[in-house]
Amino acid sequence: MSINTANEIDIVKASSSKIDTVDFENLVFGNIFSDHMLTCDFRNGAWEKPVIKPYEPFLLDPSAKVFHYGQAIFEGMKAYKHEDESVWLFRPDQNWDRFNKSAERLAMPEIPSSIFIDGMKQLIDLERNWVKKGKGNTLYIRPFMIAIGSGVVAAPSTQYRFMIILSPAKSYYQGEVKVIIADHYSRAANGGIGAAKAAGNYSAQFYPTKLANEKGFQQIIWTDDATHTKLEEAGTMNVFFRINDTLYTAPTSERILDGVTRKSLIEIAKKQGIDVDVRSVLVSELVDAAKNGSLKEVFGAGTAAVVNPIVGFSYDDTYYELPKVENSFASQLKEKLTNLQYGLETDDFGWMVKV
Amino acid sequence: MSINTANEIDIVKASSSKIDTVDFENLVFGNIFSDHMLTCDFRNGAWEKPVIKPYEPFLLDPSAKVFHYGQAIFEGMKAYKHEDESVWLFRPDQNWDRFNKSAERLAMPEIPSSIFIDGMKQLIDLERNWVKKGKGNTLYIRPFMIAIGSGVVAAPSTQYRFMIILSPAKSYYQGEVKVIIADHYSRAANGGIGAAKAAGNYSAQFYPTKLANEKGFQQIIWTDDATHTKLEEAGTMNVFFRINDTLYTAPTSERILDGVTRKSLIEIAKKQGIDVDVRSVLVSELVDAAKNGSLKEVFGAGTAAVVNPIVGFSYDDTYYELPKVENSFASQLKEKLTNLQYGLETDDFGWMVKV
Repeated sequence: MSINTANEIDIVKASSSKIDTVDFENLVFGNIFSDHMLTCDFRNGAWEKPVIKPYEPFLLDPSAKVFHYGQAIFEGMKAYKHEDESVWLFRPDQNWDRFNKSAERLAMPEIPSSIFIDGMKQLIDLERNWVKKGKGNTLYIRPFMIAIGSGVVAAPSTQYRFMIILSPAKSYYQGEVKVIIADHYSRAANGGIGAAKAAGNYSAQFYPTKLANEKGFQQIIWTDDATHTKLEEAGTMNVFFRINDTLYTAPTSERILDGVTRKSLIEIAKKQGIDVDVRSVLVSELVDAAKNGSLKEVFGAGTAAVVNPIVGFSYDDTYYELPKVENSFASQLKEKLTNLQYGLETDDFGWMVKV
Repeated sequence: MSINTANEIDIVKASSSKIDTVDFENLVFGNIFSDHMLTCDFRNGAWEKPVIKPYEPFLLDPSAKVFHYGQAIFEGMKAYKHEDESVWLFRPDQNWDRFNKSAERLAMPEIPSSIFIDGMKQLIDLERNWVKKGKGNTLYIRPFMIAIGSGVVAAPSTQYRFMIILSPAKSYYQGEVKVIIADHYSRAANGGIGAAKAAGNYSAQFYPTKLANEKGFQQIIWTDDATHTKLEEAGTMNVFFRINDTLYTAPTSERILDGVTRKSLIEIAKKQGIDVDVRSVLVSELVDAAKNGSLKEVFGAGTAAVVNPIVGFSYDDTYYELPKVENSFASQLKEKLTNLQYGLETDDFGWMVKV
């Protein structure tokens, strides 16, 4: 069945839904996808008409540029269902904006909000049964763009595919997270693509993370590649440090992702009256603070886990355990942010957008 | 037709060849592919049986990890036909070795030479009509590996696909190449993946290269990302500088690709009695040498173009034109290397491997 909707998105519905086969209480993050996806190709210098259609594999030529030159970017977002059955997005304009910045940095075409945001809303509207009520339940949203033009010559593609796929998810929880501070490997170069949500940035982290895992650490806190003295990100998340009662996080830069959770937590913290200092934190400061007891908390912040408390860190072969803090900033901020996302508190920021 | 060969590669032949439709005198680099490809999947911790079969698109899930996390590596090689119709590879062991180093750095499985080299030989043996005689004619070989496992969680895939595709090519010639020396953008981080032939390294270069193109330059000479004072690579090639009669090129590092053409030219130059100094060359040295007339040549070196002479460079908004040099090192070294590859001179190095 093909319906041409008012705003020019074709919808081809799946003949049946697989939703009844899904155990929503035991979801593995990012492994199950909903019945439909949005797909839209860029050819001859323009975006074609988007199509919402059954989730399915697609054909690519072996010489497709995404395989050889890595033109691939993505976003991570979530949809939330409120008690009244309404479905909401969190600051989709921020993800759209960042997606286009990533696109520019990788010489890919920008995409209009009529496809990115309106297309997303239509897709989620169709899949609203996949969004479950209850705090922690979400429909994870993965918009991405890949170069589909063919040819093994190192130059930007002229053809691209934008897609949105949806995966039901529980809160992403890694268990106790111990981290190691990077003193050799790096995730981003000055003048590189660290600020872009580019596929290539992630594969670069897998090997160092594997080495860290083998030593008993779940994640790496990345430092600047030139000197390894400045703390920058934790795993695939932004990172916050609480020293005494001040919350620190690095400023965004060419090396550091402008995280939507990061910037939202900064605003919430300020509103809560927490002293926030956005500046580079040195490894030496962190070690000193851990030694003198002023280091209270370290946590990652990102869409998947929201807030991910870190229980200790290793640097220069010494392990520093963090104190257990009552009413931690991490838990306060997470509570406030998720209350807002699930409609349990008033959204004074105007961040929530109804589907 | 399926033939199980002695060394366990299945061959499924194309019903007809498209070779007669190809204009071998007017080839665009990397745009046309031969009749067959090799494909081999890694699942359950092991490489499955490789298959040589008709070149064709293949299906991937929208959540395939190559699209989201950039696990993708490749090599670039060439096959040469000698006057006696024999077909040869150039140092395939070096590409196989580097491929496995790239694989390790991206947390991908290493591949045995029985698939990479022996599989390549069988594929090229089947496609030997696609390798044309005459200097400059080659069959460009593109081995690559991508993560095909599904799931949008940032962790290494458990499933991979290795493929080899073949593209007939003339000598890759860009025309006159003027370059700009990078003073902001970078291609690699310390502790990053610059030494790996990873897809993500290439897309990172497209935008800065586009900016350079808009200013009238064809390529960028990349510098170290921390200080932008050391000259590292030119475009997607290694770079050589001739100051007076000494040839300089940067040592390989985590930021610099261990190019097969680069290392071969170094050996040829030494054997020719050229003074070669493998060390970092500073931007300031290059500018000084250009000013005092001791800078004789700059050229890129890589598989596609072999040697790519640069006619001038821009730094700090000043353009420095290089002199026109008789009997240049670039032309001498290219002549020697290509004579060896096309069987026009004895291969004293033992580099050529017969298919």
